[in-house]
Amino acid sequence: MTRHEIIFQIKKKKSFLCIGLDTDIEKIPQHLLELEDPIFEFNKQIIDATKDLCVAYKPNIAFYESRGFKGWESLQKTLAYIPNDIFTIADAKRGDIGNTSKMYARAFFENMSFDSVTVAPYMGSDSVTPFLKFKDKWAIVLALTSNKGGLDFQKIEDKYGKKLFEQVLETSKQWGSDENMMYVVGATRAEELLEIRAIVPNHFLLVPGVGAQGGSLKDVAKYGLNSDCGLLVNSSRGIIYTGNDVDFAQKAGIEAKKLQQEMAVILSEAGL
Amino acid sequence: MTRHEIIFQIKKKKSFLCIGLDTDIEKIPQHLLELEDPIFEFNKQIIDATKDLCVAYKPNIAFYESRGFKGWESLQKTLAYIPNDIFTIADAKRGDIGNTSKMYARAFFENMSFDSVTVAPYMGSDSVTPFLKFKDKWAIVLALTSNKGGLDFQKIEDKYGKKLFEQVLETSKQWGSDENMMYVVGATRAEELLEIRAIVPNHFLLVPGVGAQGGSLKDVAKYGLNSDCGLLVNSSRGIIYTGNDVDFAQKAGIEAKKLQQEMAVILSEAGL
Repeated sequence: MTRHEIIFQIKKKKSFLCIGLDTDIEKIPQHLLELEDPIFEFNKQIIDATKDLCVAYKPNIAFYESRGFKGWESLQKTLAYIPNDIFTIADAKRGDIGNTSKMYARAFFENMSFDSVTVAPYMGSDSVTPFLKFKDKWAIVLALTSNKGGLDFQKIEDKYGKKLFEQVLETSKQWGSDENMMYVVGATRAEELLEIRAIVPNHFLLVPGVGAQGGSLKDVAKYGLNSDCGLLVNSSRGIIYTGNDVDFAQKAGIEAKKLQQEMAVILSEAGL
Repeated sequence: MTRHEIIFQIKKKKSFLCIGLDTDIEKIPQHLLELEDPIFEFNKQIIDATKDLCVAYKPNIAFYESRGFKGWESLQKTLAYIPNDIFTIADAKRGDIGNTSKMYARAFFENMSFDSVTVAPYMGSDSVTPFLKFKDKWAIVLALTSNKGGLDFQKIEDKYGKKLFEQVLETSKQWGSDENMMYVVGATRAEELLEIRAIVPNHFLLVPGVGAQGGSLKDVAKYGLNSDCGLLVNSSRGIIYTGNDVDFAQKAGIEAKKLQQEMAVILSEAGL
């Protein structure tokens, strides 16, 4: 999917919501477990209930991989079920030497037909560039993550006071463009979006961690929005696990709608 | 597999060789392509020809993942075929937030039965520690990699002159012990093993990139060997793609034997 199409969908749906499909067999409603493929059934109903409210779905690959063949089958079926006008993100955090990253790119872009893959930057350029060689496909590089361990290395400063995540942004943005690269930026530190926007004003940012807990979406938009929107804000558990009964998808739809409506206001106020 | 067992096998086989199963359908001998599972057939014959010469096999997960279901099936069969007294490494370079890393750990340790997984450190403690919670299983953390892009970030110095890979070693060694953690250390910079050994004297190091090109094994041993050996030296393409005809496995065996014999001399000289 092209940048142009992503922006078109954001404006059309008045939403920059990404829904994370972290589908866990231990967390989905009991009644689905009797079905042949409970994981796919869960995703299918979530997609039916939310597809008009979001512009991206982000399956968390670990949750499928941990179930072996069955998991990969559920993932393939989910991917096939997602409407073509919705951006798909394989949240896989891959990254290896060149010839190996090329294989991962093939896995997600050719064998499956994801639009994008999340990629870890530790191994540098040749771990990321193989993902940039596919037409209309994207690498979404980890810059700043909001987990506890994100502090261990990402904010280490060099002798000029430049933090590691800033180095990652500055160096890696030269490998591609805002037409084939995005960045993962943790949402618990909304002010840092200012620093990030100073380095990558045009790139789309994938912001995880804005959920039912709410509150930070406005801050994220305040500091992160650019003239093309430039944001995909993800919620996973805050949407998909709102309910735990036969009406789980309906409840997920209600949560997604709340976020979409907030986003519509934000976009409107920004003249988008 | 325990540290004790790994050391026992190294002494018994007079080898610290790890063979990388980077099995690529485009590189294996033509005659295998007629078989039902060419990737597994290739691996099977390589294992038959080398199992007495190495102490570890390291399937490169990307090569299997890129082939979808078929690839995962080839991987499962390969893993089942590897003798129990040989250490297995899922070269997967995974790493994500805690609950997701836990899923990856399950994928490789429970769904499959690998002894270890390679893990990327960028997301910090909670991306690695879930791999340390499984008895007799190992996380092998990327420290210094020998690919071109390894220079992009891993050697950035902080204001005290400490390089990122040194920070990764110092911080991460506190998350586990030399009984459940190893480190990936690129072999093109053998002298840097001195710096690394100053930080992690006891941990096993997985050293990739010593192959048919040869020459550096002695240097790696000179700077990296400790009193328990403490090294697993990997060769992938330099062994498995030596031949490209019906005798490919025999030729792989000859290359493996050369490395094993060099290792036997090194171990003997070190009194191991």
